Amino acid sequence: MTAPTPPNAADCDPTSLAWMTGFPPAPDKAVTFADGSFRKFPQLRWAWSNIRQLVPTIDVWRGSGPASALPRDVQDLGKVKATTMDGRAITFGDALDLTYADGVVVLHRGRLVFERYSGALQPHKQHIAMSVTKSFTGTLAGMLVAEGKIDPAAPVTKYVPELAKSGFGDATVNQVMDMITGIKYTEVYTDPDSDVWAMRRANGMAPPLPGVPQLSLLEYLTTMPKLGAHGEVFTYRTVNTDVLAWIMRRASGQSLSELLSTRIWQPMGAEEDAHYTVDRLGIESGGGGLNTTTRDLARFGEVMRNRGQFNGRQIVPTSVVDDIARGADPKKFAPAGYATLPGWSYRNQWWVSHNEDGVYMARGIHGQSIYVNPRSEVVIARYASHHAAGNVNNDPVTLPAFAAVARALKG
Amino acid sequence: MTAPTPPNAADCDPTSLAWMTGFPPAPDKAVTFADGSFRKFPQLRWAWSNIRQLVPTIDVWRGSGPASALPRDVQDLGKVKATTMDGRAITFGDALDLTYADGVVVLHRGRLVFERYSGALQPHKQHIAMSVTKSFTGTLAGMLVAEGKIDPAAPVTKYVPELAKSGFGDATVNQVMDMITGIKYTEVYTDPDSDVWAMRRANGMAPPLPGVPQLSLLEYLTTMPKLGAHGEVFTYRTVNTDVLAWIMRRASGQSLSELLSTRIWQPMGAEEDAHYTVDRLGIESGGGGLNTTTRDLARFGEVMRNRGQFNGRQIVPTSVVDDIARGADPKKFAPAGYATLPGWSYRNQWWVSHNEDGVYMARGIHGQSIYVNPRSEVVIARYASHHAAGNVNNDPVTLPAFAAVARALKG
Repeated sequence: MTAPTPPNAADCDPTSLAWMTGFPPAPDKAVTFADGSFRKFPQLRWAWSNIRQLVPTIDVWRGSGPASALPRDVQDLGKVKATTMDGRAITFGDALDLTYADGVVVLHRGRLVFERYSGALQPHKQHIAMSVTKSFTGTLAGMLVAEGKIDPAAPVTKYVPELAKSGFGDATVNQVMDMITGIKYTEVYTDPDSDVWAMRRANGMAPPLPGVPQLSLLEYLTTMPKLGAHGEVFTYRTVNTDVLAWIMRRASGQSLSELLSTRIWQPMGAEEDAHYTVDRLGIESGGGGLNTTTRDLARFGEVMRNRGQFNGRQIVPTSVVDDIARGADPKKFAPAGYATLPGWSYRNQWWVSHNEDGVYMARGIHGQSIYVNPRSEVVIARYASHHAAGNVNNDPVTLPAFAAVARALKG
Repeated sequence: MTAPTPPNAADCDPTSLAWMTGFPPAPDKAVTFADGSFRKFPQLRWAWSNIRQLVPTIDVWRGSGPASALPRDVQDLGKVKATTMDGRAITFGDALDLTYADGVVVLHRGRLVFERYSGALQPHKQHIAMSVTKSFTGTLAGMLVAEGKIDPAAPVTKYVPELAKSGFGDATVNQVMDMITGIKYTEVYTDPDSDVWAMRRANGMAPPLPGVPQLSLLEYLTTMPKLGAHGEVFTYRTVNTDVLAWIMRRASGQSLSELLSTRIWQPMGAEEDAHYTVDRLGIESGGGGLNTTTRDLARFGEVMRNRGQFNGRQIVPTSVVDDIARGADPKKFAPAGYATLPGWSYRNQWWVSHNEDGVYMARGIHGQSIYVNPRSEVVIARYASHHAAGNVNNDPVTLPAFAAVARALKG
């Protein structure tokens, strides 16, 4: 299930390889946006921890208060044993190497029990969350629903009339939240002809084509044709999340960065500011543009595990967390054919296992993840820069390893 | 000395004009990098407080400790009376409006006695410092000299051999620090043919010309021809500062952002991170790319006023501050013909008045400034977005107003 000869994590360590060191970096050590080298492996191992040096970003302010405490009770979890889906005996430490982990924080009952950094990441530095961003967008959307600012049964055009002629014209907000729309849009990261590249040019994460007028992200969303019916099956398409974020901006009058700062980042006592990548008009990528520290990613996981309570306050309404944890209909998820996720569903931008521990996850394509295990009272936040874009490549290692850590901590 | 009919600050307020509001902003409310609108007035009043949304940046970390205290003892300085160079009676409040101030913090004996925000700026937001950046670069250079890492008498080629064939090939570090090199490079912000535009394309602050391979900032510096002799007269050329920053990186092995973070931002207890704009290779603009909050700008002014001591420690060696405060030779400055700065000099990237109060300043072309008045124990930090690029446009108002505030506080 993994590539034939995957590179060893140590052999592609971005610090050893000296990417972007020297003044100026030598041509063969440069990682730049314009030439696309930032998306190549192993250069991406540097880039995913340094996105703001490559593209414009907008700040998500942590507020003026102190960071919330993460009491430490460090344990030697690196030796926890696990068995991969294809039957190999490994340790949790092996799993982190095999999945090119850059930063890992494990919390048990709110205590920090494990923390490790590799690659180009440091505790205070932000790493790109990619599709983990979606789970922040969905949670904020749930909060706006709970406040009565968004009606999940309403058509998306109630909030964004510009989408009337697009494939989203007859979709509901809830269908967008659960990605059960029928839209003609392909997201195959390894296919240069996939629609995902046009979206990346629109949201500022790929260089514009020379001589072609560049659509902004929101303009691009209005061009999506319909394909099939809405409401039937889950199909992973990032454009749903960006439509959801558009609805949220219109319903709240706030940018995504303002929403995240005021409703989550400040109340949860984030340690560092976060930032989103933006398009040429300052519109955040709600589907993939968030960058945070590993610890702050773990804090958000802990907010969820505690049913919205953290840092002495109710940050996310309990009903919003419970709705996510409960998941959606696995029957609508099954046709998508995720071999490593049998019985799972996708609810409001989160991946829900429906297993006995009630595990749900936020997942990014290079191994970025938030793993919430309510039964074991465990949260694992991991940033990674896997060589292959797609969780099918790391799930066979990641999912058993995370489960083993949860079991070990539960005791 | 000012433009014939200068716009009223309130009439060009970026918040009232609603730049970049709406999702997406309407075409006539958009401020973008690619079309150059971010440099136009009044759009620049929004852009100078939102640079990181327009171009790539690198973080200057504040560290994990608390911000240093700025005890408050607020006074009604807005009513302090002053007389402009052309004889108009105004108040300090008027002066701030007349110079399109975005953020102002006045410290007296280390106490915050006045603070005001306008335009698109807020207390926690960073504004571009433009040439105020140079004074940070110079101070850090002075620190490296004090540590013996840089020899000011050495040729620049001792640190940067790549400059051997350029006009800097026979210049000394000290000549670069004081901008008394003879280099063929013009810096006329209002002239589209001035060399400053090629530098801005190189450092990432102007869009590249279509179809022309783009030099990086350091490559550009190696192309500067010589014009006249070194060591004779002061001529304001930003390329000197960027050569100095190059020398500093080579001498320290650190980037400019690392130098600023570890040597000033962390020890002085900055309230927020700062950031530099970077070129396509991640190289900071040492001549103009720093962005900070107004309070942190004031903190740095206070470090200087206290001869390097602040937040309970010696941050900059006293000898480095004293050397700057003493100034350079006004005879070498006079030929530059700054009508508003009679008797001043330029020492190590600071503007030194040689007046009875021992005033010296950091100055940016849209009115950004740090005013240090040792005799009156006053520091004024001001961010501004003046419509005209060049301090000759605001000095007639600014310099008398700052002096009046210093007199009023001295009592």
